[in-house]
Amino acid sequence: MYGLIGQIKAQPGQRDALAAILLEGTAEMPGCLNYVVARDSTDADALWITEVWDSRDSHSASLQLPAVQAAIAKGRPLIAGFGSRTETEPLGRAGLPR
Amino acid sequence: MYGLIGQIKAQPGQRDALAAILLEGTAEMPGCLNYVVARDSTDADALWITEVWDSRDSHSASLQLPAVQAAIAKGRPLIAGFGSRTETEPLGRAGLPR
Repeated sequence: MYGLIGQIKAQPGQRDALAAILLEGTAEMPGCLNYVVARDSTDADALWITEVWDSRDSHSASLQLPAVQAAIAKGRPLIAGFGSRTETEPLGRAGLPR
Repeated sequence: MYGLIGQIKAQPGQRDALAAILLEGTAEMPGCLNYVVARDSTDADALWITEVWDSRDSHSASLQLPAVQAAIAKGRPLIAGFGSRTETEPLGRAGLPR
């Protein structure tokens, strides 16, 4: 499996609008096992995106999907910058639903 | 929802053993929507744990579960330290399974 943990800084006041765009564009991505959009609890402009994919290739391919391309274009004006970006290798996961 | 993104540093050579302990002890935790254990792709001793809970209280309660307590005790000798720890508020998630 392939994973990503990344922080995105939204323009002031645009965090939730950006989150909605990200979630809308990423609803159906082949090979995506998990894609969570979360508010940072201390930085009012920051979002955290945590992703689990069945492979790196599935993640790369997703960037060409029309819905993802549209979300990137729609969301870009709301992005002020990017924080940390960590590539991971998910080993397993627990919790419901399986 | 309540989320956590945290890095754990294992003792040298103990990362996978620690990951197995974490996954074993966290298989059945009420309110846990997602608990992913992943290798850091650049730091050979680091694991990333990303969690999504239906509430902060569910997360707190989980720390009292016998299986989690046993995992903590069993895993502690394999832990060299902790890296960043970020609390989040998950807004939504995509990807299979829902």
